[in-house]
Amino acid sequence: MTETVDQLLHARWIIPVVPENQALEHHTLAIKDGRIHAILPTPEANRTFQAEQEKELPGHALMPGLINTHTHAAMSLLRGLADDLPLMSWLNDHIWPAEGKWVSEEFIQDGSQLAIAEMLLGGTTCFNDMYFFPDVTGRVADAAGIRAVVGLIALDFPTVWAADGEEYLHKGLQVHDQFRNNPLVHTAFAPHAPYSVADPVLERVRILSDELEIPVHIHLHETNDEIIQGLQHHDCRPMERLQRLGLLSPSLMAVHMTHLAEGEIDTFAASGGHVVHCPESNLKLASGFCPVNRLLNAGINVALGTDGAASNNDLDMFSEMHTAALLAKGVAEDASALPAAKALSMATINGARALGLEAETGSLELGKSADLIAVDLNRLQTQPIYHPISHLVYATGKEQVREVWVAGRHLVSEGILMTLDQTRLLERATYWRERIAES
Amino acid sequence: MTETVDQLLHARWIIPVVPENQALEHHTLAIKDGRIHAILPTPEANRTFQAEQEKELPGHALMPGLINTHTHAAMSLLRGLADDLPLMSWLNDHIWPAEGKWVSEEFIQDGSQLAIAEMLLGGTTCFNDMYFFPDVTGRVADAAGIRAVVGLIALDFPTVWAADGEEYLHKGLQVHDQFRNNPLVHTAFAPHAPYSVADPVLERVRILSDELEIPVHIHLHETNDEIIQGLQHHDCRPMERLQRLGLLSPSLMAVHMTHLAEGEIDTFAASGGHVVHCPESNLKLASGFCPVNRLLNAGINVALGTDGAASNNDLDMFSEMHTAALLAKGVAEDASALPAAKALSMATINGARALGLEAETGSLELGKSADLIAVDLNRLQTQPIYHPISHLVYATGKEQVREVWVAGRHLVSEGILMTLDQTRLLERATYWRERIAES
Repeated sequence: MTETVDQLLHARWIIPVVPENQALEHHTLAIKDGRIHAILPTPEANRTFQAEQEKELPGHALMPGLINTHTHAAMSLLRGLADDLPLMSWLNDHIWPAEGKWVSEEFIQDGSQLAIAEMLLGGTTCFNDMYFFPDVTGRVADAAGIRAVVGLIALDFPTVWAADGEEYLHKGLQVHDQFRNNPLVHTAFAPHAPYSVADPVLERVRILSDELEIPVHIHLHETNDEIIQGLQHHDCRPMERLQRLGLLSPSLMAVHMTHLAEGEIDTFAASGGHVVHCPESNLKLASGFCPVNRLLNAGINVALGTDGAASNNDLDMFSEMHTAALLAKGVAEDASALPAAKALSMATINGARALGLEAETGSLELGKSADLIAVDLNRLQTQPIYHPISHLVYATGKEQVREVWVAGRHLVSEGILMTLDQTRLLERATYWRERIAES
Repeated sequence: MTETVDQLLHARWIIPVVPENQALEHHTLAIKDGRIHAILPTPEANRTFQAEQEKELPGHALMPGLINTHTHAAMSLLRGLADDLPLMSWLNDHIWPAEGKWVSEEFIQDGSQLAIAEMLLGGTTCFNDMYFFPDVTGRVADAAGIRAVVGLIALDFPTVWAADGEEYLHKGLQVHDQFRNNPLVHTAFAPHAPYSVADPVLERVRILSDELEIPVHIHLHETNDEIIQGLQHHDCRPMERLQRLGLLSPSLMAVHMTHLAEGEIDTFAASGGHVVHCPESNLKLASGFCPVNRLLNAGINVALGTDGAASNNDLDMFSEMHTAALLAKGVAEDASALPAAKALSMATINGARALGLEAETGSLELGKSADLIAVDLNRLQTQPIYHPISHLVYATGKEQVREVWVAGRHLVSEGILMTLDQTRLLERATYWRERIAES
């Protein structure tokens, strides 16, 4: 007697990520009701299961989808608008004025779709967003079928989304309610940064985060300027201020963390907080080097993000993983720092842990959602294959992602988007370029 | 009356690289006898020229092919064999033993072909090689139609290629003679490194390089260990030793240069020598950070290379250009360091200058060889397009290279190799993996 499942994926390698550094050869993954039902050697799978849909992946690595743990998806429409500038001039003179002029529901819808399409094609199955109109980004993600954590953004100054701290939080709670029962779209509080959010709002965020049991997503210690400003205005470094406000906790996702003084790594490790490392954005804005190897050695969970496409300038998690693995060695002056398997964990399970979604996604374990990608290693650039995990980190390009599933739904098939219309996305990008470039 | 040319390429943008930071919209490039015959607005081209072959490149940037100014092509067969190790342990415990066991004419032929195929598909039209059996690599390059500078390697210790310094030079001169009149395959002396080549051989290299007017290609100041060893064995730093031997000159390509003391940058600048920067290899081996911005500010010509696929682990010059542009900002702590247009120059014309080939390749200028690539920017990851040069450096993936010509010969058409058999290359890679992995 064979058991019937929904799909059988027969892969040259299955890389579950948990346990780390394992590549199962000639294995099959069975999907039932959108979840990972079994992983076993292919001959055994063929004896045990039957399925309506079977897929041969003869030169592919089947692995968890990548998790982009920090981005501003809709900023894809501002990609390459202003480059080669430091953070504060890039923000004050270019990005914030452009946002003030252009951000609208229409902008967020088109920008989020463009970003989601790029992320899916590149093997990202879950992203953690921080931007305006999180309700729109959530709806777009849900329709496209990608998993998302939309940030309930908070700022001190008025934008098209909200007028003041109170309204940001109020609208954020409405967005949270909207997606409360959505299986794909989750929420996190997203106070922008210590320098742009005042104490009373941060205190409210802490209380609400505890009550609703959702994480807090914030830019922290991104630049040295931020720390100098913190010392001037608050008589303490930003991380210490968050600690005083009770925000250092296992619910915190601290993004960037490029400047850390003696003792701060231990303090952060003791809090159980998560760091989200964005190496390409940190390099491009010359923000500083995140001490990834020291953070890992201190036992901190480090996840990986691209940041927005306006400061990266892509949403390519394969490139980000590659850059993270290389840069960590350079910064640590140790070629054994952040080996390939650890970099792969950062781009998958560590993101799930930071988001509180480790029971649902981030690795190929029984019962988890079938959030998977198949990467074709049978290309010249990844030949010969001595260690497939090495190639996934050091040699694979995002174009080798051929198949993507989220919760068992097939979102990319043979490199083609199944739930988004690429031609229309290109038209909309041109529409926005014409409006924004001529302004 | 219209003039007849061989090919007309009608492009959305032509990016000549010289002059820097220029994108000519809706222009056409005319090829005649393998050379760039004209560049002019498309309507004017249609009035002026007729050609048997015309190609529409409606969403593409037409630009010079990339120049990989430092690699060890055949090491592609050792890609991913040993990772996450520092330079000397990687070399002594893994790479040199594997080379000792496996390097042969057959290995070099298959490895060079695999590397050339990867480079062509990724938009590289010229590479500067340093490895054993340069005659074989040169023949393979010539047959594939790619431009190459093969290194006349020299070492103190015996290998399958030569027994001692004298034989390395003798065989090198034979290889030089073999390619003397070849329009695509050039030569350079390639003494491996100061720590692996003794003074008498370096002196002979200087004399022969002057006589034959070919460049000298050497690893220099790659790691701090190399410098400590130089001080122990020669009572001076390696660069000073090369200076004493008369090797610091406009003929020198110094690869890596990650450790430079006070004054050394000025000394090198005054010599007119060239630096070849290999950021991904330097990071992966934790060798140190090349001070690219300081080198450029001192007026030094800095070219770009991937190094071999055993320490990168790809031969992707788009990725290398991206990493170089990002890392230079991080290292200089200045987001305006190495802006996009300068990074593009490093990956093209600066390589040609280092190789003494600036009259022949490296930019789209009249009379130069038609060494060109067309990059499709009409992809989601490079939309919208405000500044095409920014996208080429910060957002483009090598898979967007659709067309490649060298000396007017079409080597990649719609992403397909025209002169190499991809299926056979994959078979040969599997053959070598089976032999090497099981040893």
